[in-house]
Amino acid sequence: MNLPEQADLEVPRLGDCQIPSPATARHLPFVDDSERILLSSSTKLVQSYIDAGKPLPSLEAAGPRREIFFDPEGLTCGIVTCGGLCPGLNDVIRSIVMTLHYVYGVRRIIGFRYGYAGLSKSPVQPPVFLSPESVAAIHEHGGTILGSSRGPQSVADMVDTLVNWKVDILFTIGGDGTQRGAHDIAGEILKRNLRIAVIGVPKTIDNDLEWIDRSFGFLTAVEAARPAILSAHAEAKGAQFGIGLVKLMGRHSGFIAVRASLANPDVNFCLIPEVPFTLHGQGGFLDVLTARLRQRKHAVIVVAEGAAQDILQDPRHQERDASGNLKLKDVGAFLRDEIKKHCASRSLPVAIKYIDPSYTIRSLPANSNDSAYCLVLGQNAVHAGMAGRTDMVVGYSNGRFTHIPIRLVTGRRKQVDPRGEQWQYLLQMTGQPAVMVGGAE
Amino acid sequence: MNLPEQADLEVPRLGDCQIPSPATARHLPFVDDSERILLSSSTKLVQSYIDAGKPLPSLEAAGPRREIFFDPEGLTCGIVTCGGLCPGLNDVIRSIVMTLHYVYGVRRIIGFRYGYAGLSKSPVQPPVFLSPESVAAIHEHGGTILGSSRGPQSVADMVDTLVNWKVDILFTIGGDGTQRGAHDIAGEILKRNLRIAVIGVPKTIDNDLEWIDRSFGFLTAVEAARPAILSAHAEAKGAQFGIGLVKLMGRHSGFIAVRASLANPDVNFCLIPEVPFTLHGQGGFLDVLTARLRQRKHAVIVVAEGAAQDILQDPRHQERDASGNLKLKDVGAFLRDEIKKHCASRSLPVAIKYIDPSYTIRSLPANSNDSAYCLVLGQNAVHAGMAGRTDMVVGYSNGRFTHIPIRLVTGRRKQVDPRGEQWQYLLQMTGQPAVMVGGAE
Amino acid sequence: MNLPEQADLEVPRLGDCQIPSPATARHLPFVDDSERILLSSSTKLVQSYIDAGKPLPSLEAAGPRREIFFDPEGLTCGIVTCGGLCPGLNDVIRSIVMTLHYVYGVRRIIGFRYGYAGLSKSPVQPPVFLSPESVAAIHEHGGTILGSSRGPQSVADMVDTLVNWKVDILFTIGGDGTQRGAHDIAGEILKRNLRIAVIGVPKTIDNDLEWIDRSFGFLTAVEAARPAILSAHAEAKGAQFGIGLVKLMGRHSGFIAVRASLANPDVNFCLIPEVPFTLHGQGGFLDVLTARLRQRKHAVIVVAEGAAQDILQDPRHQERDASGNLKLKDVGAFLRDEIKKHCASRSLPVAIKYIDPSYTIRSLPANSNDSAYCLVLGQNAVHAGMAGRTDMVVGYSNGRFTHIPIRLVTGRRKQVDPRGEQWQYLLQMTGQPAVMVGGAE
Amino acid sequence: MNLPEQADLEVPRLGDCQIPSPATARHLPFVDDSERILLSSSTKLVQSYIDAGKPLPSLEAAGPRREIFFDPEGLTCGIVTCGGLCPGLNDVIRSIVMTLHYVYGVRRIIGFRYGYAGLSKSPVQPPVFLSPESVAAIHEHGGTILGSSRGPQSVADMVDTLVNWKVDILFTIGGDGTQRGAHDIAGEILKRNLRIAVIGVPKTIDNDLEWIDRSFGFLTAVEAARPAILSAHAEAKGAQFGIGLVKLMGRHSGFIAVRASLANPDVNFCLIPEVPFTLHGQGGFLDVLTARLRQRKHAVIVVAEGAAQDILQDPRHQERDASGNLKLKDVGAFLRDEIKKHCASRSLPVAIKYIDPSYTIRSLPANSNDSAYCLVLGQNAVHAGMAGRTDMVVGYSNGRFTHIPIRLVTGRRKQVDPRGEQWQYLLQMTGQPAVMVGGAE
Repeated sequence: MNLPEQADLEVPRLGDCQIPSPATARHLPFVDDSERILLSSSTKLVQSYIDAGKPLPSLEAAGPRREIFFDPEGLTCGIVTCGGLCPGLNDVIRSIVMTLHYVYGVRRIIGFRYGYAGLSKSPVQPPVFLSPESVAAIHEHGGTILGSSRGPQSVADMVDTLVNWKVDILFTIGGDGTQRGAHDIAGEILKRNLRIAVIGVPKTIDNDLEWIDRSFGFLTAVEAARPAILSAHAEAKGAQFGIGLVKLMGRHSGFIAVRASLANPDVNFCLIPEVPFTLHGQGGFLDVLTARLRQRKHAVIVVAEGAAQDILQDPRHQERDASGNLKLKDVGAFLRDEIKKHCASRSLPVAIKYIDPSYTIRSLPANSNDSAYCLVLGQNAVHAGMAGRTDMVVGYSNGRFTHIPIRLVTGRRKQVDPRGEQWQYLLQMTGQPAVMVGGAE
Repeated sequence: MNLPEQADLEVPRLGDCQIPSPATARHLPFVDDSERILLSSSTKLVQSYIDAGKPLPSLEAAGPRREIFFDPEGLTCGIVTCGGLCPGLNDVIRSIVMTLHYVYGVRRIIGFRYGYAGLSKSPVQPPVFLSPESVAAIHEHGGTILGSSRGPQSVADMVDTLVNWKVDILFTIGGDGTQRGAHDIAGEILKRNLRIAVIGVPKTIDNDLEWIDRSFGFLTAVEAARPAILSAHAEAKGAQFGIGLVKLMGRHSGFIAVRASLANPDVNFCLIPEVPFTLHGQGGFLDVLTARLRQRKHAVIVVAEGAAQDILQDPRHQERDASGNLKLKDVGAFLRDEIKKHCASRSLPVAIKYIDPSYTIRSLPANSNDSAYCLVLGQNAVHAGMAGRTDMVVGYSNGRFTHIPIRLVTGRRKQVDPRGEQWQYLLQMTGQPAVMVGGAE
Repeated sequence: MNLPEQADLEVPRLGDCQIPSPATARHLPFVDDSERILLSSSTKLVQSYIDAGKPLPSLEAAGPRREIFFDPEGLTCGIVTCGGLCPGLNDVIRSIVMTLHYVYGVRRIIGFRYGYAGLSKSPVQPPVFLSPESVAAIHEHGGTILGSSRGPQSVADMVDTLVNWKVDILFTIGGDGTQRGAHDIAGEILKRNLRIAVIGVPKTIDNDLEWIDRSFGFLTAVEAARPAILSAHAEAKGAQFGIGLVKLMGRHSGFIAVRASLANPDVNFCLIPEVPFTLHGQGGFLDVLTARLRQRKHAVIVVAEGAAQDILQDPRHQERDASGNLKLKDVGAFLRDEIKKHCASRSLPVAIKYIDPSYTIRSLPANSNDSAYCLVLGQNAVHAGMAGRTDMVVGYSNGRFTHIPIRLVTGRRKQVDPRGEQWQYLLQMTGQPAVMVGGAE
Repeated sequence: MNLPEQADLEVPRLGDCQIPSPATARHLPFVDDSERILLSSSTKLVQSYIDAGKPLPSLEAAGPRREIFFDPEGLTCGIVTCGGLCPGLNDVIRSIVMTLHYVYGVRRIIGFRYGYAGLSKSPVQPPVFLSPESVAAIHEHGGTILGSSRGPQSVADMVDTLVNWKVDILFTIGGDGTQRGAHDIAGEILKRNLRIAVIGVPKTIDNDLEWIDRSFGFLTAVEAARPAILSAHAEAKGAQFGIGLVKLMGRHSGFIAVRASLANPDVNFCLIPEVPFTLHGQGGFLDVLTARLRQRKHAVIVVAEGAAQDILQDPRHQERDASGNLKLKDVGAFLRDEIKKHCASRSLPVAIKYIDPSYTIRSLPANSNDSAYCLVLGQNAVHAGMAGRTDMVVGYSNGRFTHIPIRLVTGRRKQVDPRGEQWQYLLQMTGQPAVMVGGAE
């Protein structure tokens, strides 16, 4: 694994921090700017840097600073949520509002409605003011009280809107596309020489952000996959040659599928984008599946939504959604139909049930461990903004919350390593072949 | 409502009960043959029978009898589960086995595998023997440990199988088709002059059995619909003009859809088979929906799977499944597409999310109230069989368990009355128009 | 069972209904005053009335009337919740507010705070105004948004308060004591010749109200008991001679304990107030328990809080709470200690874990089936009030909602019949002796 | 923080690994002995070692080795579970059995019953043989199928038992005391010059093991605390001056209390063993609490079971349980009574509800994220044993599974740092004073 250069790990600052933090009065412990977290805890990797006499790549630790950049008095902060739903959005909103209000005394907090569309010149709905009262119970509900939307807006328009509303710190809660937009906003702010901080809170239920151990919503998604897998198992066992097929989230990375399979040992096959397979041919997936069915009479399959897209996609006719994401074909329906066809041709009368719990999962409230995580993400996003950081997201690495330059997390995607630990655990548990690429039948 | 003639309410008996029940030793209270339950508790209806000098239509009360028909010593009982999964199947199996074993001392209990197919001459899998140990923890799992299947088998074959295995009492757990099959088996037994009892435990998650207040699995299904509806609500509120659309079970009767809507007041529209509507035209469903969207910006719709089949089905090309049930078109996908089309044509940029939790619901373990109900169903099925009743199912009316002749429950279907209480509650809550039949646009 | 005289089943009315219901416009079906529901559906009982030439005892059916008593224009309604928490309180409040607002157009709805204390001359907190917006999401939370309290207040004071606030209909949500208070308020109103209706919504998680099939919160309580019982089972099996002991609600009636035991067949003993037992002596509870422990190595016990009070209470020193209820001794802790002592004296090294989930259960939000039930209770309470009924509660018998005079439900208590069906099911399932009264050891 | 010397981080080995792993055939990736994980990822700490020219303290990475020590053919493995229940025990047992059977082909796996007592000369129950069939569904149940017990046994006896049963690898699943016992067993084995490996799987629901990021059961415990806290909140809001008090696990470390509080922002006070406080005096806990009650009318308190023991314990009369753990006084009941007394003396009529969900939590099945974690713990315990490691436990640090010498984890306890991040997040969220030590009143 190549680590980034140290220079690419430094987060921009709007200026020096010279205002004493109001948190001083509350005897909160502070984090020093010099606290840094190693990117990797592998001794081999660390030793190679030492041997090469190079600085150890590390990230700035997140947390409240003793001195801050912005004067909380009269400060205005804005919040926007973008992209698909994810458990924890309301927790993050709540935590940002509560921390701004109670820790720093910020009184003007604006929620822009329906994603970046709410920052455009003519928003669909006007923004709302947020207060401790208005957000007190929102964490008990899934979704986002601000609403969301996909797709880019004019960067100039959005910065105009920030200026019009006198926003000093903008918190952008969203995924890859959202943070790319946030980076563009930060760039425009820099160009115009404005004193506005842009702090991202990275959202990806798929957990596919590099340098971030886990993203909020992931633990909830893994928990929520269990009932679907148990149902698939009950359906599979309830019929002769029964098959339960569950599609889980994971556009490019199979983390949810892998973790949910590890958590539910009734799973017999886990198919993810990172490990290509063929349907046909000896040793291909259908061959292996039918062998198991004949022997064990049932099978449970978990497939990540991004799996097998090489088989499914016609490179000449790819569609994209408003966020610019490739529209994936429904691998679940495809597999169901192919399995039916294949087994019918081999006189194996399968009964296959296909379960797609995606919308039900992503719209859940965060579970406890995600809620606690979102709370701290929100706290640290506020601390970073108050300390004048910008063009960054709050990260989490090796058990510590960190500041990460936006371009570092939007640059590449974290994936399951087919030679790594996670996949090894999975292969041990399911017993599925490491390779399911068919030869001649 | 026309009540059946009293003659049609009498359950056949294989003969007189002359053997003292072993339950006597345990000081269990017994139920007397003369205890009967009125079919209706409406004073008007009852008074009309009194005025006409006719006997009040009533059902025999279920429960243990002081004297029984079969000698438990050396008795063989068989169990079979048929049709789609339903929460509580394993509870019923468990209760039958436990009651046979512990209350009556029956030691030979046979589970036929994969529905009536397991009773055919050449079963897919041989039957298994069931004991208190083997069924001790099965109620914690959804599905059925015996497996299930759809479709009829030769009645002669099945009775041959019963004779081969020396089965004295057969318990048939299943829906409409299953109980019709059970009635045919009982008929063949009668023709051959055999001493075999056939006791049905009626299964319909849709709760659509006449004379039965509720069927097992229904309460669980209603509970399990809540997360889906909450998700639909979160999705609907999470986008401008957001729509959450949930399809629930209910092939011919909308009980699950109605009860689940009553339980979740975020539902704005509930569509069921019993209340036809049109999509188009002024005052039609799409017209009412878009009016709401413009005013309230979001909507949550619950639709029973059997709704709108008059719109969907081409009477010339109807397909049926192995049980002989009409294959329903997917009303959820249809509505989603029609709503999208209609709103696009009116420049209303809706974001619609369609959720179909059916497989996840029907494969659940029973919730507590269903478990308790299944336990008693199983107990009373055993008591009925031991007392020599046959060609009957165990029912539940006006808070009491009863014996009902099979042909009475397979003869007609219970439905939501559009002029009745349930639907009135629903209309009050949702505020949806009582009639959504469109005129000219 | 003795049924009441028909005269005692009639609900008082403030006057004739002459105002057309606004619901007419919405094409809601109406319920006719002549619709009545039999108190019993036992043919024997009904026949005995016919034979005696006496009218069949029946209750008026609840539901919206075509003509109403109060003019919704300018009407003021009040709501108060009293006594301990119970799942569904907020659902009932919400349903009353929504039905008043949307079905009848009532605009002034007052919530009195903290029970009858909020109706006193100097309330702890002033009342709040309730609207569809303020109650929209309250059903997702346990407890009561109005707060509650125990204990009586001056009836004259409370009626003064109603007059001061110009309340036309008062909805009292609460248990036995609350409804006795409501009856007194109605009496004072009558005495002063006021036109104020008092409509009770009966609340008892214990399900111990006579003539009411089930009370709200009961189904939720039964569901919520499951995790506690599963825990008790895991603890019991996790140790040699392990015992799991769960105390469930049920001051005078063991319905929750019985239903929860029926729902969880891991329960080996169920102890309720209606079935006395002794601890000591041959054949007493401790004797039976230790016999089982030696044979099966573990045991799970469910005890209703009101069980064994004859053993526990010192008749000379009984305490009562602010509602006038007898303060029960903690039967769980008592049994735990007695079991320990007894087993120690017999060299049986038991490991006993005592679980009391009461507060966790009663503060839950209602589950779906209770929510749907509360919704309809609230609707029918409003219809009854608008139709000028008073001094009554909304009931539910034989599957229909009814009007019941308050004095009928406060007069006596529903209990588990030790010779009846429920207890018979329980004895069959647990296998516990019907009698556990010890003789000489 | 002082890191241990590198010498203390090395795990003992029974000998060289010279047998090719059967996993080779399955194309599983292997872990090399040279892979090591840094103990700390703080750059400051790492740099200090570099500057001092000292080796970076690190742990051996867990995982399957290409060559192993034991020949799987004819191998015998034993498993024992000790101490209190904890979610995930059955998952670990299952994973060990499955990995031994499917990955290595080990056929003789013995489960000792009821903890170390089952390893004694005269065990309470004989051991059982474990197979993939017998453990297939155990992960769905809380508790431990092997049973457990507390307290030490004769080390010589236990090693005799291992020799009698020809055990080659013993897996000890348990906490601090259990692993100390395992260390003693390993010592006796070494003394006798036997070839028996002892591999620990550390169990502590409190998450208080040093060098281990989190222990299994912890995530489940945090999730399961939510309903109790929500109940406490509903009870607190349901009464004037209502207080909800929840006691959570945490004998010496408040991790569960802190994480559960962070996850449920309705919590107003969190009390843990690491942060002493006084009840009385100005600025003491009762003073701060009553101030809040007067202002906000309700309060929710979470207290770790080990909090305030300095106030509670009489140093002259301390009791210990069979495991040698100090018997804690019930801080929840104590606080409840002290709060009542204090508020009564200040005429503040509080209504306090005390909830102790401990037994209900620890006996739960593992949630998904814990299940996945237990699966991998079990896999890696097997790999370590097969590779001849001994006198070690499987750890988890910086996102990687590791081998840790037993004496390292039993030597000291992980605690919440009152100047560290976790506690800082908590103080920010609750707003409770950093110091609640009362001066003169």
